[in-house]
Amino acid sequence: MPVSFSITHGVEFCETDMAGIVHFSNYFRWMEEVEHAFFRSLGLSVMVQDGVTNMSWPRVAASCEYLGPACFEDVVTLNLRVARVGATSFTYEIDFIVAGKPIAKGKLTSVCCQVTPTGFTPINIPAAIRAKLADVSQSRG
Amino acid sequence: MPVSFSITHGVEFCETDMAGIVHFSNYFRWMEEVEHAFFRSLGLSVMVQDGVTNMSWPRVAASCEYLGPACFEDVVTLNLRVARVGATSFTYEIDFIVAGKPIAKGKLTSVCCQVTPTGFTPINIPAAIRAKLADVSQSRG
Amino acid sequence: MPVSFSITHGVEFCETDMAGIVHFSNYFRWMEEVEHAFFRSLGLSVMVQDGVTNMSWPRVAASCEYLGPACFEDVVTLNLRVARVGATSFTYEIDFIVAGKPIAKGKLTSVCCQVTPTGFTPINIPAAIRAKLADVSQSRG
Amino acid sequence: MPVSFSITHGVEFCETDMAGIVHFSNYFRWMEEVEHAFFRSLGLSVMVQDGVTNMSWPRVAASCEYLGPACFEDVVTLNLRVARVGATSFTYEIDFIVAGKPIAKGKLTSVCCQVTPTGFTPINIPAAIRAKLADVSQSRG
Repeated sequence: MPVSFSITHGVEFCETDMAGIVHFSNYFRWMEEVEHAFFRSLGLSVMVQDGVTNMSWPRVAASCEYLGPACFEDVVTLNLRVARVGATSFTYEIDFIVAGKPIAKGKLTSVCCQVTPTGFTPINIPAAIRAKLADVSQSRG
Repeated sequence: MPVSFSITHGVEFCETDMAGIVHFSNYFRWMEEVEHAFFRSLGLSVMVQDGVTNMSWPRVAASCEYLGPACFEDVVTLNLRVARVGATSFTYEIDFIVAGKPIAKGKLTSVCCQVTPTGFTPINIPAAIRAKLADVSQSRG
Repeated sequence: MPVSFSITHGVEFCETDMAGIVHFSNYFRWMEEVEHAFFRSLGLSVMVQDGVTNMSWPRVAASCEYLGPACFEDVVTLNLRVARVGATSFTYEIDFIVAGKPIAKGKLTSVCCQVTPTGFTPINIPAAIRAKLADVSQSRG
Repeated sequence: MPVSFSITHGVEFCETDMAGIVHFSNYFRWMEEVEHAFFRSLGLSVMVQDGVTNMSWPRVAASCEYLGPACFEDVVTLNLRVARVGATSFTYEIDFIVAGKPIAKGKLTSVCCQVTPTGFTPINIPAAIRAKLADVSQSRG
């Protein structure tokens, strides 16, 4: 099993709702937060707009199972694993931990796309990025 | 198959991101938007704080498959179906349609809980609510 | 005084926070919501990306005074007035009303900009847009 | 002039909009982020729900002047000053800095309230909290 990449996220007041706990939609923002931190840790950015290629990673699937609430001022540990690297897409699994206890499990699948004026076209993940992602998902297995 | 309940949602500027399309986390907010409109259409509210019972519907699972982007000023039709009514939980399926074309498919499972100072305890869905939900999911089948 | 342009906004659950009322930051999203609806009512869009000009309206100032809370399922009437049309900028005033009672007063100043790869450059408001905005702010006075 | 309290905030992708910069409403969330971190630094929490008193700090005014854009992956320094401590309310001023350059200036006024089932009632700021806030705003002057 690949070693995971981790960050922590302190729960902000505006992330709670009138039920007194974090609104469930925020977990998807946090999945992206750890994903982008992971990319930066590899020396990559999710935005490549170099005048030649305009690349983006739209989601094709996102899901979350909620095991318990997260509350204001909780410090949530987000553990990301690269679960799969395909030709054009990859999948992460994210564990949400508060005080040593899992509170949620998420999954995110993105596809590598070239952005053109008319839309998004899936392309093969560039070799340089694939090498780094594969390295993480395999060599740490 | 149960008849669906529908609303439309006009995409707001603040729901887009720098990729030029709606951020994927907003789809989960829209699922809740149609769910709550559906509750209101049945004469119900998701918040029951009557001094006796403090009831809430935390999510246990949420997922979304993305088939194509939603853009600023798109009018998204949200079709909700009650897919399952269990003892303490129920599941919705939501189709996202723009200009007649499906752009996403979502699923949301909530559990009926009593809120106490120490947390959330699952309880049986109150008979009055169950009757209304079951009526929608079965009699229209 | 210019006649105002109005829309209503039903308060969503995810707009509330653990204090049980709408989080104050959402009022700024609602100001933009009525502004963009106002633009559409004039046959305009805030986004002009026609391949020739890439125009945008970044904010230079935004403020809100809060007179009372907004709650889940409240229907908020948003009344927008064009308070001032300058050479490159304009200012709106927005009243927030729930059940006939003002709950907030907001103000928003935007500047017309050309977007280039290196940033935002203020430009004169195009004559066609100026004419429509001025028409609203003056002829209804 | 009082010494300021500071945190940094890394700009997340979901905070940008299709204009390619941070949506202006997020600056109000960041003002609250530094405010709450400031409270924690004093050993306080904005939420006091101890069974006896249910205290909250609703906003009475919020404003922001925008001097330049914030972009994805920018690290924004948020400098907070306690500008005024009144009987029931206090006012912060917040500077937003990116790479040594001010990009915005914000102001936030909150009122200390007791929360009851019927609403919010302004109360005098409790002595223990006032002492800590006054200490920051004066002794560092």
